[in-house]
Amino acid sequence: MPSHSPLDVDDVRARVQKSIDAFLSHQEPVLGTVSPDLAPIIDALADMLTGGKRLRPAFAYWGWRAAGGVDNDAIIDAAASLELLQACALIHDDVMDGSDTRRGRPSVHRRFAALHREAQWLGSPETFGMGAAILLGDLCLSWADEMLYRSGLDPASLLRAKPVLDDMRTELMAGQYLDLLEQARGGGSVERALRVARFKAAKYTIERPLHLGGALAGADPSLLQTYSAYGLPLGEAFQLRDDVLGVFGDPAETGKPAGDDLREGKRTVLIAITLQAATPAQEVVVHRHLGDPSLDVDGVADLRTVIVETGALAEVESLIDRLTAEALTAVGAIDQPAQGVLRDLAVAATARRT
Amino acid sequence: MPSHSPLDVDDVRARVQKSIDAFLSHQEPVLGTVSPDLAPIIDALADMLTGGKRLRPAFAYWGWRAAGGVDNDAIIDAAASLELLQACALIHDDVMDGSDTRRGRPSVHRRFAALHREAQWLGSPETFGMGAAILLGDLCLSWADEMLYRSGLDPASLLRAKPVLDDMRTELMAGQYLDLLEQARGGGSVERALRVARFKAAKYTIERPLHLGGALAGADPSLLQTYSAYGLPLGEAFQLRDDVLGVFGDPAETGKPAGDDLREGKRTVLIAITLQAATPAQEVVVHRHLGDPSLDVDGVADLRTVIVETGALAEVESLIDRLTAEALTAVGAIDQPAQGVLRDLAVAATARRT
Repeated sequence: MPSHSPLDVDDVRARVQKSIDAFLSHQEPVLGTVSPDLAPIIDALADMLTGGKRLRPAFAYWGWRAAGGVDNDAIIDAAASLELLQACALIHDDVMDGSDTRRGRPSVHRRFAALHREAQWLGSPETFGMGAAILLGDLCLSWADEMLYRSGLDPASLLRAKPVLDDMRTELMAGQYLDLLEQARGGGSVERALRVARFKAAKYTIERPLHLGGALAGADPSLLQTYSAYGLPLGEAFQLRDDVLGVFGDPAETGKPAGDDLREGKRTVLIAITLQAATPAQEVVVHRHLGDPSLDVDGVADLRTVIVETGALAEVESLIDRLTAEALTAVGAIDQPAQGVLRDLAVAATARRT
Repeated sequence: MPSHSPLDVDDVRARVQKSIDAFLSHQEPVLGTVSPDLAPIIDALADMLTGGKRLRPAFAYWGWRAAGGVDNDAIIDAAASLELLQACALIHDDVMDGSDTRRGRPSVHRRFAALHREAQWLGSPETFGMGAAILLGDLCLSWADEMLYRSGLDPASLLRAKPVLDDMRTELMAGQYLDLLEQARGGGSVERALRVARFKAAKYTIERPLHLGGALAGADPSLLQTYSAYGLPLGEAFQLRDDVLGVFGDPAETGKPAGDDLREGKRTVLIAITLQAATPAQEVVVHRHLGDPSLDVDGVADLRTVIVETGALAEVESLIDRLTAEALTAVGAIDQPAQGVLRDLAVAATARRT
């Protein structure tokens, strides 16, 4: 008999959406009082904050529940605030990468560039779009902790959670900078690529959201350690799965053209392992194609062949299996029903889809 | 007999610097634990956070004192946190404007572009510099409320102050967006230009810092109203003084080349009033020169002549006088020694320097 309903995860996701909608409805008149010209900001953020897997709120919610917190709307609001932090990261990331789309829709900077173009305003639409996107990201970053504090959780809980949020934000920005640096350096070190995965994904997406929920509920230190023992390997596995999908994934699922990570030249753990194992001839293929914006289907196929033939894909798959198993062992120490949901989330986040 | 020592303002400024230095010394090992590659971040922020007028911390500190708060190091830390918020605004502003310098030093994005160039990394130094600057601004925005919460002020005070900080950040981002929009639309409305001045400068630089200090000290609503009655007109006068200095100021004082705001094409209240009063011939001069990046000394002189001959300069000067007088009347309701310091700050921030 399953220890939890399969609807639990979907249910939290739907409530997170309602909570975000309510927060934006609160902010709309706040901006409206400043000027009606600010309406496009709310529209853009409402679109940006629709859909998505809501992984971070899910982990925060179950971090609360596993620590004995009772289900209520306040913890959903608190957990949902992580989506605003994530929106900041995505909006700014798209500016930094010059990405045109996000989940199949125009990225925020493109959206505001289009607004500028349609209105035939002065100056460069791209510069306006970039400026607007930087400011919208800043607004999301500010609103993330505003939403957490407006959740209605008691002050003692909020003060316990604050240092977790602080660490989480610092680690996110640090991880993003290291990622930027890794791309600039042309990668090459498996260890450095793993460190980026650890800070950008493992801590930020899984461990810290669990800690945040736990801290809000007053979890004891040993439970927080269990969250780390589950969250860190799982987060690395999740990032590795994302690396594999970026190269071999189905565009219908990833929402990005096939081989897009190769075209962008992303220096992932998968690529670092490939280069470590490559023969001189294979290395030539990687250096010729990786990061070529006009890379075609044949080029993508050539790179995929090298990644398979060096054994890098098999090594990453076995690493994913090992890390996921480690996470599943650690989760055994957590009470039901949280344990069951965390098991499901672990499997869903890392399962093979190619 | 002066009601306060002339050293009060300098004294607060020196203590704010010490407080920022201590906060960065705390964060340095936090980043160091993530990776030694993060060292350039602390170096850049330490430079960025050295010097400056520290206006926002000064107003926050005196907002606390005027509400009966006693002098201590915790309030200095809390007040100093506003410099981190301001650092975010400046770093991101420089990216949006493509500014090369800040207070005579390379702007953060230029600094990281130079780091990239020296290291001969892959890709565009400009793109790397922009990405790093976006992330450093995000870090400053996160660290601003981290520093406020680490100040050691009691939780009840911090929770009272939180909504003020929330409003302040939203107003800052909203004001910046309206400014961007105003430049794109080519200005033209005195009312819209004044609204940008109100949100970007008056509320953000003076009213909200006073409110923050007041809220931390538990000020009653009537005192907060007095802060608004002083802060809003003073803040607008301060922004108008800045507009005038941007056109007529001494480069030695402003740290920017003469007429730099004209070259950038800034749509200030001064320019809006000029265009409102201009003859068709004068309008032609403004449209020919304003926003011309290669504007030379003669062009600057032509524009200055139009600004003077339309009566716009005189009108702005009289507006500054009127607004400053209004602020000085309101400040009469505040106890000494805060009243004396706030009077001095008002005069210093708005005095003619041309």
